[in-house]
Amino acid sequence: MKRVSFIDLGSNSVRFVIIEINENGSYQLIYQQKESIRLSENMWEKNKLTEEAMERAIMTLKAFAHMAEAMESTEIYAVATAAVRLAKNGNDFLKLVKERTGIDLECIDGTEEAYLGFLGVVNTIGLRDFILFDLGGASIEVTLVKDRAVKQSVSLPMGALTLTGKFQEGDEMSEKERKNLISHIQDVLSKEKWLKDKQLPLVGIGGTVRNLAKIDQRAHNYPIEKLHNYELSFERLDAMYEDVCNRTLEQRRKISGLSYERADIIVAGTALIRELMLFVDANTICVSGCGLRDGLFYRYYGKHYMNDSGIVDNILVHSAENVLLNRGQGDLIHAKYITNLATMLYDQWEKVYEWGPRMRELMQVSALLHDIGKTINYYGHARHSAYLIVNSSLYGLSHREQAICAFVAANSHGTNSKFIKASAYGHLLSTEDRAMVAKVSLVLALAEAIDESHEQSAVLVNTEFTDKNINVTVWKKPGGNTSIAEVVINKLIKQCKKDFRKNLVVEWREAL
Amino acid sequence: MKRVSFIDLGSNSVRFVIIEINENGSYQLIYQQKESIRLSENMWEKNKLTEEAMERAIMTLKAFAHMAEAMESTEIYAVATAAVRLAKNGNDFLKLVKERTGIDLECIDGTEEAYLGFLGVVNTIGLRDFILFDLGGASIEVTLVKDRAVKQSVSLPMGALTLTGKFQEGDEMSEKERKNLISHIQDVLSKEKWLKDKQLPLVGIGGTVRNLAKIDQRAHNYPIEKLHNYELSFERLDAMYEDVCNRTLEQRRKISGLSYERADIIVAGTALIRELMLFVDANTICVSGCGLRDGLFYRYYGKHYMNDSGIVDNILVHSAENVLLNRGQGDLIHAKYITNLATMLYDQWEKVYEWGPRMRELMQVSALLHDIGKTINYYGHARHSAYLIVNSSLYGLSHREQAICAFVAANSHGTNSKFIKASAYGHLLSTEDRAMVAKVSLVLALAEAIDESHEQSAVLVNTEFTDKNINVTVWKKPGGNTSIAEVVINKLIKQCKKDFRKNLVVEWREAL
Repeated sequence: MKRVSFIDLGSNSVRFVIIEINENGSYQLIYQQKESIRLSENMWEKNKLTEEAMERAIMTLKAFAHMAEAMESTEIYAVATAAVRLAKNGNDFLKLVKERTGIDLECIDGTEEAYLGFLGVVNTIGLRDFILFDLGGASIEVTLVKDRAVKQSVSLPMGALTLTGKFQEGDEMSEKERKNLISHIQDVLSKEKWLKDKQLPLVGIGGTVRNLAKIDQRAHNYPIEKLHNYELSFERLDAMYEDVCNRTLEQRRKISGLSYERADIIVAGTALIRELMLFVDANTICVSGCGLRDGLFYRYYGKHYMNDSGIVDNILVHSAENVLLNRGQGDLIHAKYITNLATMLYDQWEKVYEWGPRMRELMQVSALLHDIGKTINYYGHARHSAYLIVNSSLYGLSHREQAICAFVAANSHGTNSKFIKASAYGHLLSTEDRAMVAKVSLVLALAEAIDESHEQSAVLVNTEFTDKNINVTVWKKPGGNTSIAEVVINKLIKQCKKDFRKNLVVEWREAL
Repeated sequence: MKRVSFIDLGSNSVRFVIIEINENGSYQLIYQQKESIRLSENMWEKNKLTEEAMERAIMTLKAFAHMAEAMESTEIYAVATAAVRLAKNGNDFLKLVKERTGIDLECIDGTEEAYLGFLGVVNTIGLRDFILFDLGGASIEVTLVKDRAVKQSVSLPMGALTLTGKFQEGDEMSEKERKNLISHIQDVLSKEKWLKDKQLPLVGIGGTVRNLAKIDQRAHNYPIEKLHNYELSFERLDAMYEDVCNRTLEQRRKISGLSYERADIIVAGTALIRELMLFVDANTICVSGCGLRDGLFYRYYGKHYMNDSGIVDNILVHSAENVLLNRGQGDLIHAKYITNLATMLYDQWEKVYEWGPRMRELMQVSALLHDIGKTINYYGHARHSAYLIVNSSLYGLSHREQAICAFVAANSHGTNSKFIKASAYGHLLSTEDRAMVAKVSLVLALAEAIDESHEQSAVLVNTEFTDKNINVTVWKKPGGNTSIAEVVINKLIKQCKKDFRKNLVVEWREAL
């Protein structure tokens, strides 16, 4: 086991994470801290970091270095972005940091900043083609991604803090100031012709976009609080922009979901995002809670544990296995066996019920993770598995899909529709989703029941559908005992009758 | 790590559990199965187990033995109770079991049966003085417990199955049949003068009482599903008795919460419990989900890991530590340090706010377990800790107290009253409870913040209360860095203002 620290020193805030990597290659966040230190504050007149800002940064970095040591983190990777990059005294600051904190702070260029943000997103959001932006305090990185690779990227020297500083005099932005701001943004964007009207979904990183998502969730009573992978439409963003423009600073501070320190820079930040959406002609923004610091981690992880690119091949399977391995059960073999058995059944049943290929992948995630709730309590473990599935770092799933995975796992032990209704995540499912969950969960339940004894003796299954029956034949290795499986299968007959209106008949045969 | 199996072969059902015991002494249930095999069915005419019943039992035991092997359980402890004890062919059956399943099934007498039930209860229910009953298919064991020790016990040869068989001809019990039943029960009980009018709370084990609790919970929309430690009043039991007597078998089968196989024997079972309550003059029954099989485990655990009695000294602390150790964090040292720090603060603040000694114990449980949610996800870990606290096998807490522990832990990271309201467990708290949870959670939060760096450098704290301030002085070991703690403490100032209407001022001093 080892612990590695990553620091992202931005122009507005600094983020610090410690990741624990286990012997088996699984990893998890064990500590995180974020401070709004506003490194770029008052730097733009002379293009120099101020004494006060540098002191604030150093005090915080010192605390982080101290924390890393206390938590037995053996390595620290720290990068600084736009503020340090653009400051005349950036190099002096880096030296000072080294002297006073011991941290080798590296100032990265715009391309690298964009690439690290890309790495954080491509490993945690399941899109192949998109335009990524990372809106910070003093710059915005925009990256065109095709087939999960960077096509082109640019770092533009405008951010939520700097635009506010340049275009706004008092606490509010006047109409004239706003006009100037917009025309400046349009001016800068117009030079990036490779982005014009691309009509790809936008993926957004950074405090501004996260805050907008939070405001939107609160305003519309979104049933859960998760921001990562939340979708924001242009209409909603446009309405929020209207709203923040029409409020005074005091009034903005009262917006539910908007953090206090961001109330003054939200107008310029939202304006920039809105212009970007218009410029690339995007309908939605997908919010990413993962960004540069995650990219730093994946670069490290790739190098030491995976591949040089740092790009995970199948993020859904990778993250599901990571969750499983992190539970420390070591029961990956059983989980994979059940997954294969359930997939075999799914492919036979899917021909009749047409649940589609995406549902197949979701069912596989449910199958991999169906037993993890046992680490909480054996009693009610299917419900606990569901809780873990919605609350773990699973990537490559929409919120609705994550809920489907959870409820398929929960239902596979007979947890009923009442449970779905009572759960916040249940509100993300349609009536059709719920019906499908009930059916698919029986497939998983049957696979589990067949291997109730954990012996992995079933080698092949076949299903025949008649008017009244679902006849499942299981070929198993010679010997062994099927009575315990039969007890559990008997409990599924009722569920089958209810959800499929057919009799479930399981016949055992000995394989050669 | 080792896995041990326990089997309880009763007259109505057979229960099978596998417990995993880790190197560090922590343990958890990893498998359980229950079958209604009705071993005593049709045995009473000749006082012999029937061929069919024995065959059913042997097939199930064979499957359990097989399962134990597949799950790598190295030892099986199996006991048989009343049916085998009372059957003329009991010994033949034991031999047959050994021959055909390899299991050394031991037939225990009534005293031992009562004692094992007592062990299962005394280690999982936080009462010192009570009357325990274990109502099975063919017998009821009644035990008088004083100061957590058995004073006297008896096994009476009447159970839910046997009473039904003896006193009921058809599917329903006629008024006359019921009269005969009641007078028989009263007759048997009247000989046990040591139980008469004891006015102690009853604790009940067995399927009948669990089922009654479930019916009661469903009927009154109890917000959670947990049965262990659920309280059932005489009034409610009486009403349920009325209800089951007035229904036909078909109608009883429709009672929400009543299991299908128990619908025919519930009348006699409820009558027996009701008469027992009247006889000992008890107002309530506390339902225990733990019983004989747990007693078997604790006897084993005591012998090999604890003490010969198998009685855990402090079940609350023991079970909380067990939950913590099972998470595999190995962070018991940090958890205990925070618990001590929080207790020191609690004792200072309690003098002013008078939360009482029981809240002190609850806060300590919250403190011990405040970080376990990190094993689910660092983000939102306080909420996850709360989930784990309400869903883990914590013993010695009422449902309301378990909810308080959970919410103190959740709140200590700023989770708000909305979260409590949205949670099913929140409905168990009164308005006063919620206000107290908010206040006490600040004590825990402050302890955590003081050791934010995980260095355990604070050696002493003192609190002074003025009209406007809560002044906390922290003496810490020389050196070290308090800046990261200060960042977190600053976030608590607002909470302190809101909940205590005072300013929180923390001053650091160096200890000698």
